[in-house]
Amino acid sequence: MAYNLLKGKRGIITGALDENSIAWKVAEKAHEEGATFVLTNAPIAMRMGEIKVLAEKTGSEIIPADATNVDDLTNLFVKSQEVLGGKIDFVLHSIGMSVNIRKKIPYAESNYEYFMKGIDVSAMSLHKMLSVARKLDAINEWGSVVALTYMAAQRTYPFYTDMADIKAMLESIARSFGYHYGVEKKVRINTVSQSPTKTTAGSGIKGFGDFFDFANEIAPLGNADAASCADYCVSLFSDLTRMVTMQNLFHDGGYSSTGISMEIMNKLGLENAE
Amino acid sequence: MAYNLLKGKRGIITGALDENSIAWKVAEKAHEEGATFVLTNAPIAMRMGEIKVLAEKTGSEIIPADATNVDDLTNLFVKSQEVLGGKIDFVLHSIGMSVNIRKKIPYAESNYEYFMKGIDVSAMSLHKMLSVARKLDAINEWGSVVALTYMAAQRTYPFYTDMADIKAMLESIARSFGYHYGVEKKVRINTVSQSPTKTTAGSGIKGFGDFFDFANEIAPLGNADAASCADYCVSLFSDLTRMVTMQNLFHDGGYSSTGISMEIMNKLGLENAE
Amino acid sequence: MAYNLLKGKRGIITGALDENSIAWKVAEKAHEEGATFVLTNAPIAMRMGEIKVLAEKTGSEIIPADATNVDDLTNLFVKSQEVLGGKIDFVLHSIGMSVNIRKKIPYAESNYEYFMKGIDVSAMSLHKMLSVARKLDAINEWGSVVALTYMAAQRTYPFYTDMADIKAMLESIARSFGYHYGVEKKVRINTVSQSPTKTTAGSGIKGFGDFFDFANEIAPLGNADAASCADYCVSLFSDLTRMVTMQNLFHDGGYSSTGISMEIMNKLGLENAE
Amino acid sequence: MAYNLLKGKRGIITGALDENSIAWKVAEKAHEEGATFVLTNAPIAMRMGEIKVLAEKTGSEIIPADATNVDDLTNLFVKSQEVLGGKIDFVLHSIGMSVNIRKKIPYAESNYEYFMKGIDVSAMSLHKMLSVARKLDAINEWGSVVALTYMAAQRTYPFYTDMADIKAMLESIARSFGYHYGVEKKVRINTVSQSPTKTTAGSGIKGFGDFFDFANEIAPLGNADAASCADYCVSLFSDLTRMVTMQNLFHDGGYSSTGISMEIMNKLGLENAE
Repeated sequence: MAYNLLKGKRGIITGALDENSIAWKVAEKAHEEGATFVLTNAPIAMRMGEIKVLAEKTGSEIIPADATNVDDLTNLFVKSQEVLGGKIDFVLHSIGMSVNIRKKIPYAESNYEYFMKGIDVSAMSLHKMLSVARKLDAINEWGSVVALTYMAAQRTYPFYTDMADIKAMLESIARSFGYHYGVEKKVRINTVSQSPTKTTAGSGIKGFGDFFDFANEIAPLGNADAASCADYCVSLFSDLTRMVTMQNLFHDGGYSSTGISMEIMNKLGLENAE
Repeated sequence: MAYNLLKGKRGIITGALDENSIAWKVAEKAHEEGATFVLTNAPIAMRMGEIKVLAEKTGSEIIPADATNVDDLTNLFVKSQEVLGGKIDFVLHSIGMSVNIRKKIPYAESNYEYFMKGIDVSAMSLHKMLSVARKLDAINEWGSVVALTYMAAQRTYPFYTDMADIKAMLESIARSFGYHYGVEKKVRINTVSQSPTKTTAGSGIKGFGDFFDFANEIAPLGNADAASCADYCVSLFSDLTRMVTMQNLFHDGGYSSTGISMEIMNKLGLENAE
Repeated sequence: MAYNLLKGKRGIITGALDENSIAWKVAEKAHEEGATFVLTNAPIAMRMGEIKVLAEKTGSEIIPADATNVDDLTNLFVKSQEVLGGKIDFVLHSIGMSVNIRKKIPYAESNYEYFMKGIDVSAMSLHKMLSVARKLDAINEWGSVVALTYMAAQRTYPFYTDMADIKAMLESIARSFGYHYGVEKKVRINTVSQSPTKTTAGSGIKGFGDFFDFANEIAPLGNADAASCADYCVSLFSDLTRMVTMQNLFHDGGYSSTGISMEIMNKLGLENAE
Repeated sequence: MAYNLLKGKRGIITGALDENSIAWKVAEKAHEEGATFVLTNAPIAMRMGEIKVLAEKTGSEIIPADATNVDDLTNLFVKSQEVLGGKIDFVLHSIGMSVNIRKKIPYAESNYEYFMKGIDVSAMSLHKMLSVARKLDAINEWGSVVALTYMAAQRTYPFYTDMADIKAMLESIARSFGYHYGVEKKVRINTVSQSPTKTTAGSGIKGFGDFFDFANEIAPLGNADAASCADYCVSLFSDLTRMVTMQNLFHDGGYSSTGISMEIMNKLGLENAE
């Protein structure tokens, strides 16, 4: 069901790798809700065959950009405004990569070059995007920026290794830049802390996939999936949430506020408590 | 602009005292978005002349109910389903009253009878509403309950006296009941922690009105007003936020995440820091 | 090992039911560290035979007081000053009781009379103690008040039912009163959020005992026991922590900041993530 | 007054620049409490004349180390154990530096090379110290690591620019490493979030000094000074706090839990609310 919630709005969506990506679902949903947008991804990460399907489906152009590269990002924001015919109303930051995770390096033995690379790609990229956008004055007043994050920024999940610290920085950048961009241009910036999600990226994290079922049994509503995350992002891009900014918003079926569920207690052979 | 976001949804809205009330704006907005609903208030608090205007405008019936009285609440949920022709999809809890504040009794000298009355009216009423609704199975799956709260539950604002502790309990009840109702029926329960708002109730708190301007100068987007709060509540009642539950959501223009603003630093004669 | 950390300090310790009580350990430890203090408990809860053992061991007097009764509390603070020869330096609030838990009433069906009783005994009692102490000017500057709480105030543990909401209120009262008493008399007030602990009271909560092992396997250092909690309380009563106030302090071996442990992942048959 | 709280304990203290440094006060206090320790600082930051005074006063050796350099840190932990005659019991991380702040570059225009340098010096250095210590098995069981941080990690203070995001990462590293080191060796790791403090480093931040008075008037107990921070750190190094780990502990006279104080309301010409 569509409501025209984003009618007339222009956006930039990063991170649509394949149809399992949250960003992919956001693009589909934003299209249904009347938005026009540009798709972007790092040239190195882009699976051109797949993203073209999405671009065609949603009538979008693809503008490749390395999110660690200020020139690429400048080109992205300049071109996007040309293509879309005006300033940007919403941005989805869905960019995360840890070489330490990929190489299965334990947290305590993290390689620092990889760690810094992870910071640059996954957190600093948000600062760079916002800095470029602000310099170009490329985002409309009341524009909305959402970056995807994970609760490991608050509590330790051993399998998430250095991405926990990187996401903590990402959330902080959202707050810090949210202050400045809010004061100057009413642009609002939030992070959505999403349930573990069966994306291609998520599947690359050893243990993350297995943890999925545990989280699902803790969360009273179960894990939030990529499609519902897209719904939520659309609500945050819409005019209905104009005064929400600098927040880290849990989209997780209640997981973050549940200490333990009866389901897990029973599974662990603990006595039924009620 | 309307989107039909709540088309076909049935609700119960408490606390619409007069046109300055957040609940009043929620009713207007929910009506615009296609919902049908019942208005309710305590018989003692109801200004019948005013609420009738809202009822007529939104095609709603008024069912008085003392929110501390389980029989009244039972009648409210039974009748509302009859009037609206089915189970309830959303509930707004906007009920708060402190005799200690009204009588300007300092926090450290709180009268305990008044304190307990405040708890019963302002926090336990949420538990009672939910308990009655659950017993009657009166709320649809994926129904959404929102209760309004204030950040004094996290940080002390001297003028808010015992309502701070009462709101802390309200937020906890939302989490606790959100777990149980979520597991059983997918009903989600959240609190919205709203900026200081120029309502008739808010104006009754000595110091609260004056604090309004300070908060407005801290918040990067300024204080969120009642109309924008209504927008936000509508987004939380909609199907776009189905997986958000047991959360306390700040709707405050960024106030909660801002330590200090340049505007206040300048006003206090502090050096311009950038 | 003793350090004389509380030499010359006078205190009031509530809640020492038997030798498993946290309060019992606090009394023993405070005595070792050079404090003198009064023991108190509700007449109805007091096991006179047991508490006399503690009183003799620590050279303390016992002054019974119903913590919901302002007259009893007034008598407690007046007499304690007489007995100890001066104003009070530290207070331990270790009082919690839920009839709903005792009677195994499910949260959603809580009896409201019992709920209100639980609030009065377990949360409002802190306000009453502080209000009485302040009125009598019975606490020295830089005095320290600690109230014991549990993380159910932040995240739902189904077995903890209405005590979750009551502890949320308790923590809020500590913050609120901490502001006022801090400004006026430099008295600091904190809550310690303790691991599940094998006390006689804790054992009365169905499911709580079973949950103990789960928490123990989540917490990197394991659950904190009553003796270590006593150590921590002593550090908070001492002059080393004078500027800590209005805080909720987790004393839980790291449980609160751990999403999941490898130990639990392995137990659940999840893949070893590192 | 001294208690012998750290008798027999061996430590490493970073960041004692001059007598205004928090680390300087920690060294003095730890010495009073019976600890032996090594002082360290980056060769480039070290004011040899001053730190020698501290070394002589506390009977300590100075081992220079660039905290971004794993070889230097390895040397530091190897030599410290030799000098002190055994494994380390406590570590103070008090290292922070932002070139963006020094050069007064506005946050939104942060230089990324400087930003990454700031991360390396101020946050990654904690990971590196812990990683080296763990590899060498240089810290005793129940050893305690404290890193100093600031509340800008949670709420935006415009003058703190990129250090806000860096401190957020530092706090996350403390949690993440606290999990692993806790499970393996019972080593506990916490951050202390300290009031604005009149140190030489703090004075270098434009606006920070001016903000000092504002914070002082918000905090019910006033700002915590460097000496009281040293007291608190000593309590965290002691055996009294063995089960506290992975926490961010506010040491701020109640500032973090105070929304607004009457003192500021009066100053701003707001009505007296009580």
